[in-house]
Amino acid sequence: MTVLSLPDLKISTLQAAYQQGLTPERLLEALLPLFNQDEHHIWISRLSEDALMGYAKRLSSLSSQQRQQLPLYGVPFAIKDNIDLVDLPTTAACPAFAYQPQQSAFVVQRLIDAGAIPIGKTNLDQFATGLNGTRSPYGACKNSIDPRYISGGSSAGSAVAVALGLVSFSLGTDTAGSGRVPAMFNRLVGVKPSYGLLSNRGVVPACRTLDCVSIFTQDCVDAENVLAVSAAYDQAEPFSRSITPLPFKKLTKLGIPRATQLEFFGQDEYATLFKQALSQFKAQGVQVVELDFSDFLEAAQALYKGSWVAERYHVVAPLMNAQPDAVLPVIRSIVSAASSMSAEQAFTDRYQMAALKRRTDEILAQVDCLMTPTAGAIYTLEEMLANPIELNSRLGYYTNFMNLLDYAALAIPAGTRADGLPFGVTLFSHAGSDQNLLKWAQQHPLEA
Amino acid sequence: MTVLSLPDLKISTLQAAYQQGLTPERLLEALLPLFNQDEHHIWISRLSEDALMGYAKRLSSLSSQQRQQLPLYGVPFAIKDNIDLVDLPTTAACPAFAYQPQQSAFVVQRLIDAGAIPIGKTNLDQFATGLNGTRSPYGACKNSIDPRYISGGSSAGSAVAVALGLVSFSLGTDTAGSGRVPAMFNRLVGVKPSYGLLSNRGVVPACRTLDCVSIFTQDCVDAENVLAVSAAYDQAEPFSRSITPLPFKKLTKLGIPRATQLEFFGQDEYATLFKQALSQFKAQGVQVVELDFSDFLEAAQALYKGSWVAERYHVVAPLMNAQPDAVLPVIRSIVSAASSMSAEQAFTDRYQMAALKRRTDEILAQVDCLMTPTAGAIYTLEEMLANPIELNSRLGYYTNFMNLLDYAALAIPAGTRADGLPFGVTLFSHAGSDQNLLKWAQQHPLEA
Repeated sequence: MTVLSLPDLKISTLQAAYQQGLTPERLLEALLPLFNQDEHHIWISRLSEDALMGYAKRLSSLSSQQRQQLPLYGVPFAIKDNIDLVDLPTTAACPAFAYQPQQSAFVVQRLIDAGAIPIGKTNLDQFATGLNGTRSPYGACKNSIDPRYISGGSSAGSAVAVALGLVSFSLGTDTAGSGRVPAMFNRLVGVKPSYGLLSNRGVVPACRTLDCVSIFTQDCVDAENVLAVSAAYDQAEPFSRSITPLPFKKLTKLGIPRATQLEFFGQDEYATLFKQALSQFKAQGVQVVELDFSDFLEAAQALYKGSWVAERYHVVAPLMNAQPDAVLPVIRSIVSAASSMSAEQAFTDRYQMAALKRRTDEILAQVDCLMTPTAGAIYTLEEMLANPIELNSRLGYYTNFMNLLDYAALAIPAGTRADGLPFGVTLFSHAGSDQNLLKWAQQHPLEA
Repeated sequence: MTVLSLPDLKISTLQAAYQQGLTPERLLEALLPLFNQDEHHIWISRLSEDALMGYAKRLSSLSSQQRQQLPLYGVPFAIKDNIDLVDLPTTAACPAFAYQPQQSAFVVQRLIDAGAIPIGKTNLDQFATGLNGTRSPYGACKNSIDPRYISGGSSAGSAVAVALGLVSFSLGTDTAGSGRVPAMFNRLVGVKPSYGLLSNRGVVPACRTLDCVSIFTQDCVDAENVLAVSAAYDQAEPFSRSITPLPFKKLTKLGIPRATQLEFFGQDEYATLFKQALSQFKAQGVQVVELDFSDFLEAAQALYKGSWVAERYHVVAPLMNAQPDAVLPVIRSIVSAASSMSAEQAFTDRYQMAALKRRTDEILAQVDCLMTPTAGAIYTLEEMLANPIELNSRLGYYTNFMNLLDYAALAIPAGTRADGLPFGVTLFSHAGSDQNLLKWAQQHPLEA
């Protein structure tokens, strides 16, 4: 697959091209042949050429004044296939689960209303349960940089679609790290917004009390623009929150895990790249402080060992109990653990997490934000398929605690291995810090 | 039992008396004989005369400047015996559960630090499970106005102690209505604060995600003073919240349930008294609006039928499983229902409650606050003991939804039946409306 010969798909580039005469139809005509080559297993479904041209024509028919009011005029985007788009069925990567939504998800509709063009629905780890991108009957999603490697997941196709220049941005979802791990593995920016900042209405839940719609872009400027359009309080979604952005302050203190708490699973080149990222922050005058991460790591354990799995069970059980074979064995084995969990455990887990959050908030209060590797290791498709539970859990080492502790996170590229595979780090802080994280990443650029 | 011949125990009266030469020792000397007569089964334990005099002497030894900094100087108060006071064991009305706390509860310590004198620990429905005050091995608590009747519960002794003039105020707890029902039955003000406004550290949980420490006083002025001292964010209590009071506005619109949704269980005199309370608001220029209460009533059902019972089970189960006879049969039967509840149900209940809250918030948005009877019926001790589950559940008709929906509530006296038993209404609104509710009740006085 080749990168688009048109102007690259960054939003600002596209906007300039539209000013200079590009039309949405011409853009889509150039992109269409690329969509059809899908060796990476990006897509579960796509809009027909007619449907796409319908979107394009509606945009082209607008007056220039109307266009100027659309911050995402003619910007193509992809949608993880656990998020509703009215034009296509939603599968959650499980054909037997598929349904035809009656309306698009709240966030998708906001993006379309802002001028963005939906291209299709992307591949994912079934029911968004996984961080690797191989758990799909639509094919294991391949890494955009080296197709022998995993793409990361569960928002696999959404990340690869942006990385290959097929769309300007994409929507994923992030419960355990599904909006961050694929960002690192495909050298993207991954925004994991504060819980409730983006409405979950029209999203197939994984863990409904934790799920966040996430955003993949090529850079932080695009991420800011897409986030600004997507974020809105949704009265009709009970878990939507009205979140006041925290006031901006400069990044002066960055917390990182103690050296003994860093884990690269033997992939030492990532350890070196993490140190290089730290050096770049220090060179820019940011103080780096080692902090005890044990409470974060304890919280991370609870995501799959604790009762939150019962939320996944709630979504999958009706189908799984009626048609066991309709659900991938690995997903079945994960979610069925919840069938024996008690309500008492759900409450004691909640008490434990509230206590942990008090402690992690105190740690976070010592710095402006915390930084970890986004993932400590990457694997080939072959390695992943041979050891699907253990290797997947390694991918969540730095990500699983985030939503349990109600933090906002931003995954950004941070260097490249000798073999060309990317590294990435994640900045995170309190709910409401979304915009600050994006500003900090721009004010302290890292070598990608 | 006779009412104290000293100045009444309202805080302002006491403060004036202290200015005129009363000392804490003299006050306690006058009160001590009254504490010892306990036909109402108010107390589970009390401080010894020596211990009480120790508190009094420490206060008397202060300079007048020091005294002026203590807003509750020499004010006697009672503590429900599921809240820790370092001087006495905490029993939760279950002798086998008793333990000696190493420190006083966060709220109790704040009150003592403000000059208040703890008198003793009061009787309650065991493990704060009940709204009637009879479920205690320390004797069924008797109504302060007519001892043939129930006191209401679970904060039974705390209410009766204030009503009989033994203390100026008292602490209760309120999960289902335990700080409101006894307020009505004993003609008191009952403050059910916003969840998390008063720390639960040092409180035996009933449902830890719902429990609120509550306050009984003779009037709203005293309630304001005690609330101001008690309310403080507690970093060490994971469920404590930093709640910004909502801005004050005048009370112009009051919502009430539709006539068909009012329930007095055949006690028609209460229906008349509720109408009279409404007339008084209307006469004062407040618009009264009938609103659909079905969502509130649906939420109320979830408290004992839903998975929140698993929180009670979590507290009681270790003792109950080791020594079944140590727990009252009625409490055992209620909490053991949770042993078969699944984690999935805990989450689906939470989803349901979040959806209900969106709807009840919309109803509340149409008015400044809502008003219901505090309870629709009262029963004799004999009636209650003959039908303990059914009659108890009637007492919660207007109260059970409050903490599930995260509202602040204020129970106030509102008229008297021909037989002398009091009626009461509850004003409630959004979390953070605590102070507004107290102001509204003072600006719109009702005939008691």
